[in-house]
Amino acid sequence: MADFAERFIRLSRVRSSLCLGLDPSADLMELWGLDDDAEGLKRFCGAVLDAADGRVSVVKPQAGFFERFGPEGMVELGRVVDRIRAQGALSLIDGKRGDVPGTMGGYAEAMIGAGKGFGADAMTVAPYLGFDALRPALDRAAAHGAAVFVVVRSSNPDGRSLQDARHPDGRTVAEALADEISAFNAACGPRTGAIGAVIGATVDEAGARILTRLPQSLVLAPGVGAQGASIADMETTFGRSLLQTLPSVSRAILREGPTVKGLRGAIDRFRDQVWTACERAARSDLRVL
Amino acid sequence: MADFAERFIRLSRVRSSLCLGLDPSADLMELWGLDDDAEGLKRFCGAVLDAADGRVSVVKPQAGFFERFGPEGMVELGRVVDRIRAQGALSLIDGKRGDVPGTMGGYAEAMIGAGKGFGADAMTVAPYLGFDALRPALDRAAAHGAAVFVVVRSSNPDGRSLQDARHPDGRTVAEALADEISAFNAACGPRTGAIGAVIGATVDEAGARILTRLPQSLVLAPGVGAQGASIADMETTFGRSLLQTLPSVSRAILREGPTVKGLRGAIDRFRDQVWTACERAARSDLRVL
Repeated sequence: MADFAERFIRLSRVRSSLCLGLDPSADLMELWGLDDDAEGLKRFCGAVLDAADGRVSVVKPQAGFFERFGPEGMVELGRVVDRIRAQGALSLIDGKRGDVPGTMGGYAEAMIGAGKGFGADAMTVAPYLGFDALRPALDRAAAHGAAVFVVVRSSNPDGRSLQDARHPDGRTVAEALADEISAFNAACGPRTGAIGAVIGATVDEAGARILTRLPQSLVLAPGVGAQGASIADMETTFGRSLLQTLPSVSRAILREGPTVKGLRGAIDRFRDQVWTACERAARSDLRVL
Repeated sequence: MADFAERFIRLSRVRSSLCLGLDPSADLMELWGLDDDAEGLKRFCGAVLDAADGRVSVVKPQAGFFERFGPEGMVELGRVVDRIRAQGALSLIDGKRGDVPGTMGGYAEAMIGAGKGFGADAMTVAPYLGFDALRPALDRAAAHGAAVFVVVRSSNPDGRSLQDARHPDGRTVAEALADEISAFNAACGPRTGAIGAVIGATVDEAGARILTRLPQSLVLAPGVGAQGASIADMETTFGRSLLQTLPSVSRAILREGPTVKGLRGAIDRFRDQVWTACERAARSDLRVL
């Protein structure tokens, strides 16, 4: 079976590399006129997936907005992942899990690969407990053709201070993580690796230099739209790395609901922007994915 | 209503400050002769809570080991939290959630306080996206009489490198977080604060110095038992801070199942050790909680 990177690259040729964030937040559900309950959640997700069907390569449900409905929310998360698969898109559960290795194995089993869990194609993880603690998830991703995206540089300015703290060798926390990701991928072979990085689309040009440390990795770039970054900004900051990036838009598309037509229009506008930006990036003279 | 710290202090006078980790991992379920499915999970949790009833102040379900059963696992997590409440103990969901503020609000609503979510008394959070990103959870804890434990120093040696990286002012990542926690608690008033810290019981004496930065905080100390720290070690490393600490034991108790008798015996042995250590710590001449 093709692995996540291959499936993503194939899909993105047809549908663009846009990643649609599925964020059933209380304020968006209110904006749509839905009750803030499990039934409202189901209707929200139904409309978003109706709109995404056939148009989007990757759908990224934000776990926190499902968990807030307790067990019922998690049942809906399971349904959402199943429906994304049925639609031929890739599912990426954005849960930023991270724990000591034994527990990390539980989270990996929960989120990615076939089995008893949610069975998504990819998950996000957070590395506060160290890169090595993440290995059970990385190994499971590599074994199951799934992907793990490690948060390296988050889209919120509050994250910068911790992520820019320095190791004794002079590298920042974020730089050292990028190097660990690249070492893991390189050990798996010459292709695009199973381990991706989360780099906020909101980084400035200095922050985007970290992309040079991630030659073999997919990059998930949240923060496009409502958080302040535009696809045009990313052309400048990400440069040719845009060709290995999943620009992720949530709120700026979701606020165009509740109609499927409104959502589709917003998806198509962002897809066009992503196409155009990627075409321009491909014409530049640097490395190709 | 009394807040988490008050309820914990009251309970710990009768039941000790021992926190029981509820870790339905694949290997423990196999050791108990249970099938690794939702029915096995239910039986595992049932036996642990039968054994804990009336004996333990805080039960800490490890979310990753519930999530690995997908939605069914999360339904069981909901049942477990309800049963802990019915038994008069405090529930602490160990999920190490952490995200940008909007999403963090979703996780907080999910985990702590009355509402549509799991409604536990406390949750753990991880700070890779910065302390400020955690504020929606901290604010919800303070408003609902719940608690949030921020991972500062994890019990695994792999975490040390990132947690010891330094900010430009010379403080380590862990030290700066401890200071932020203390500032938040101090702003809430002179009592024990709603925000606790996770400090692995496995820290050495140098690592335990971080406790001096947390005068008003409860401390969750995982890693007692199977991860290598003993209560006797903690007497040395934690010193008088033991009186504000929840020593957390998982595997070293759980491996004494599947009988309720075996589990109770193990709980009682650790309770006795915790009593003795706390009595000795209380006789020392430093600050009292």
